[in-house]
Amino acid sequence: MTDQTPLDRLTAKLRSIHHLRDAAAVLSWDQETYMPSGSGAIRAEQLATLQTLAHDQFVSPEVESLLAPFLNCATGDLLPEQTASLDAASQSLLRETWRDYSRAKKLPSAFVNELERECSLAQQVWATARKTNDFQLFLPNLERMVVLKRREADYLGYTDSPYNALLDAYEPGSTVTQLRPLFQTLRTELVRLLDLIRESPVQPQANLMTQCFDTAKQLEFGRLVLKHMGYDFQRGRLDLSAHPFTTSFHPTDVRVTTRVFERDLPSCLFSCIHEGGHGLYEQGLPSAHYGTPLGEAISLGIHESQSRLWENSVGRSRAFWQYFYPKLQDLFPDQLGSVQDADFYLAINRVNPSLIRVEADELTYNLHIMLRFEIELDVIEGRLAVEDLPDAWNAKMKDYLGIVPTSDAEGVLQDVHWSFGAFGYFPTYTLGNLYAAMFYRQARTDLPDLEKNITKGNLLPLKDWVNDRVHRWGRQYTSAELIQRVTGIPLTPAPFIEQLTEKFGNLYQLPATASHP
Amino acid sequence: MTDQTPLDRLTAKLRSIHHLRDAAAVLSWDQETYMPSGSGAIRAEQLATLQTLAHDQFVSPEVESLLAPFLNCATGDLLPEQTASLDAASQSLLRETWRDYSRAKKLPSAFVNELERECSLAQQVWATARKTNDFQLFLPNLERMVVLKRREADYLGYTDSPYNALLDAYEPGSTVTQLRPLFQTLRTELVRLLDLIRESPVQPQANLMTQCFDTAKQLEFGRLVLKHMGYDFQRGRLDLSAHPFTTSFHPTDVRVTTRVFERDLPSCLFSCIHEGGHGLYEQGLPSAHYGTPLGEAISLGIHESQSRLWENSVGRSRAFWQYFYPKLQDLFPDQLGSVQDADFYLAINRVNPSLIRVEADELTYNLHIMLRFEIELDVIEGRLAVEDLPDAWNAKMKDYLGIVPTSDAEGVLQDVHWSFGAFGYFPTYTLGNLYAAMFYRQARTDLPDLEKNITKGNLLPLKDWVNDRVHRWGRQYTSAELIQRVTGIPLTPAPFIEQLTEKFGNLYQLPATASHP
Repeated sequence: MTDQTPLDRLTAKLRSIHHLRDAAAVLSWDQETYMPSGSGAIRAEQLATLQTLAHDQFVSPEVESLLAPFLNCATGDLLPEQTASLDAASQSLLRETWRDYSRAKKLPSAFVNELERECSLAQQVWATARKTNDFQLFLPNLERMVVLKRREADYLGYTDSPYNALLDAYEPGSTVTQLRPLFQTLRTELVRLLDLIRESPVQPQANLMTQCFDTAKQLEFGRLVLKHMGYDFQRGRLDLSAHPFTTSFHPTDVRVTTRVFERDLPSCLFSCIHEGGHGLYEQGLPSAHYGTPLGEAISLGIHESQSRLWENSVGRSRAFWQYFYPKLQDLFPDQLGSVQDADFYLAINRVNPSLIRVEADELTYNLHIMLRFEIELDVIEGRLAVEDLPDAWNAKMKDYLGIVPTSDAEGVLQDVHWSFGAFGYFPTYTLGNLYAAMFYRQARTDLPDLEKNITKGNLLPLKDWVNDRVHRWGRQYTSAELIQRVTGIPLTPAPFIEQLTEKFGNLYQLPATASHP
Repeated sequence: MTDQTPLDRLTAKLRSIHHLRDAAAVLSWDQETYMPSGSGAIRAEQLATLQTLAHDQFVSPEVESLLAPFLNCATGDLLPEQTASLDAASQSLLRETWRDYSRAKKLPSAFVNELERECSLAQQVWATARKTNDFQLFLPNLERMVVLKRREADYLGYTDSPYNALLDAYEPGSTVTQLRPLFQTLRTELVRLLDLIRESPVQPQANLMTQCFDTAKQLEFGRLVLKHMGYDFQRGRLDLSAHPFTTSFHPTDVRVTTRVFERDLPSCLFSCIHEGGHGLYEQGLPSAHYGTPLGEAISLGIHESQSRLWENSVGRSRAFWQYFYPKLQDLFPDQLGSVQDADFYLAINRVNPSLIRVEADELTYNLHIMLRFEIELDVIEGRLAVEDLPDAWNAKMKDYLGIVPTSDAEGVLQDVHWSFGAFGYFPTYTLGNLYAAMFYRQARTDLPDLEKNITKGNLLPLKDWVNDRVHRWGRQYTSAELIQRVTGIPLTPAPFIEQLTEKFGNLYQLPATASHP
């Protein structure tokens, strides 16, 4: 103990607090996968106790006293004499720890406890409401949640919009002012492409993917792809849950989930690849920095870029299926044995406005996100009442995608996010798509044999590349710094638009697309 | 908050501490069932943090200040003026909370942390050592564990033997002085019966149970029996683990595990019934008292009585199989279709000295326990070195059961208990057998139609009886008080000996057994 430096002591404390958060994560994973249906109430209490305790410990005078040797605890500025000799990683550790600490410090313990309890309960009510298509059942929970999130924004403080305070939790540095024009540009391009695709004479066979596919074999295939991606099953698991997710309790224990439907081949397949991308990020974080910000992912947008990179840039590419399609045909000879690879490739890239975000295609997906972003912004800024959400949802679905859900289960109730208070989360999905296209373009430059390797089922060079460029740094860089560092340019939607234009231009034989971006 | 009585405040605090213990229990369950193999080290850290924190909170000045209005914190004596008006349950709550508090208070936090960490690690080393039949691998962990448990006994204090301090954790009130003569009487009777059985011309068909039984169907049957027992799957689960166990995070979330082997029908079947008995106890504890001693089981001996009651008194009875055997035959027509029920009944009650405790028959099982009791007593009292355990084990196996393991995996490494520091635990298994026979004899008196109901597959009257007589009281009574209250007499081995003598006398057509006890 006497050999510990002040930084060691800070790190040890952060680590033991992290154990509590990890325990809560295990309890949450269990709740979504194996927990008996009758024990929801007590699980909410247990989670609230753990989260409150972790919060209390983190904002305790002990942590402040461990930070005090390094920074001004009023402003967060590093003390030059004490930190100038530290390496860049340690300075980042202090900067990011301060960021978390000062945010947490603003939230009273009783509020955190109340929020945690409401999140756990509301999630369970949401699950029932979605199953029984009963928005009214969920309404009181959602109303309480919006009140709590507005209070959270007030506690945290913000400029321009309370939404910025919430967004900042998921994508530090991002603001409504930044997102509006970004999404506007993107929307124009997406709608232009979508219109061209609608008019194309080329159209995929709609029923290829809705044949009957044995669920055990689907899972077997998902597992196979995960192994090829380098997802380590000695340090991870694949389970079933209502909504696919990835959770981590340490880089040695990173778990992904999927769901599987007999008459929907892409659902299980692409959620495995998607969550696998998240899983690789978590498995690729540096164990040595576990418990500190340097052992954590930068932001949800960067996290999502890792899943989208694998799901779309890789998993929906011709190169990928050159290797994997024969294997899929072997598993499902009756369903796919006589289907040409080009037809299969077109089918998994089918652009088709649909109701459910997580099943949406690569292009229209982002219109789902914009809908949610605009609606939740209106709710948080007080322009839209929670009880009016279903109508607002349906109106925007009609406007953006030209279709309207026939039930709330397929509409406003489809996503779990709001039930655990995740307002400001959705935009990170589209940010993830943009980052992913930027990373993938760079990877193709850095790894000239990338696609040749993919056609041989060798996905490990790409895994090593993201491990090296993204994962191993934890939060040493901000997302803006990382994207600049890796790609040489700041965030831009251009590579994403180019990627879609090139792919769908070829697939749907669109006119004049080659010259566009 | 202002309406809270001092007892409410104490209860609320105990409950929030219990949330931490429950979280640790979820992490332990996960470790034994689904945790990836590569994450053992971090799980040990996480568990140690949770247990240390729960311990620290329990021995905190806050708990003492919550107890102070009711009792003398130096002696534990209830303050008459403050507690005379409380009901018996509240007085028991205070008495038992004090018992736990004063025990915990004696253990330094650093010691608890060290012990937890060692337990979690040692369990994982044990699992590998058993798999690879390598006692030397486990030896250093076991040596450290013995040192830690002796230190624990020293911290706790004891009279006569350090073993008493450890035993008291599992079976409050029990001592070496009590167990020695009890076990002596029992051993004499068991050996007498065993000798008679060995000489009997009646012998079961040894190979009935080692045919090939599909594991999925075995699990289906185990689940069927659990449902008949009234085990509530809305508040519980059945999973697989290396060693069957029951764990509870609240009466609404009680989980049992089993293991299943294709060529061993009784293993999965009886472990399901056994763990189901434990599970019913946990599901039957009063939710209103969750987190306090009144929401907990009395002792491991009483706990074991609940599993043994179902496993042996019910699950190995003729009445039970009158209903369930045709169902088992339907599941396994090739293996059992032509096997007479009398032959099946004899086979599941086969008395046969064997190597593995958990697979042992109802009679010789207790000889396994006596062996462990004597050996661990010698280790804790310092008469036997840990490195000499394998030899001591094998010598006693020869002496008591007439057989010697050919490997440590089938010998000294077979049980998980010592790897998590559970010295003093084994005797509670035999105490459980004795209690179970006392309870069952009483249930037959109280419920004249008991066996008739069992022959119809109606096990719920017995479930209701144990719910009412045992489960719902939590720790309101000590085990000695409970057994006296329910059966009218103190602990005695006579009913157990009678039960065995009657059953095996009939089954093996033993001479002069009817007149014996």
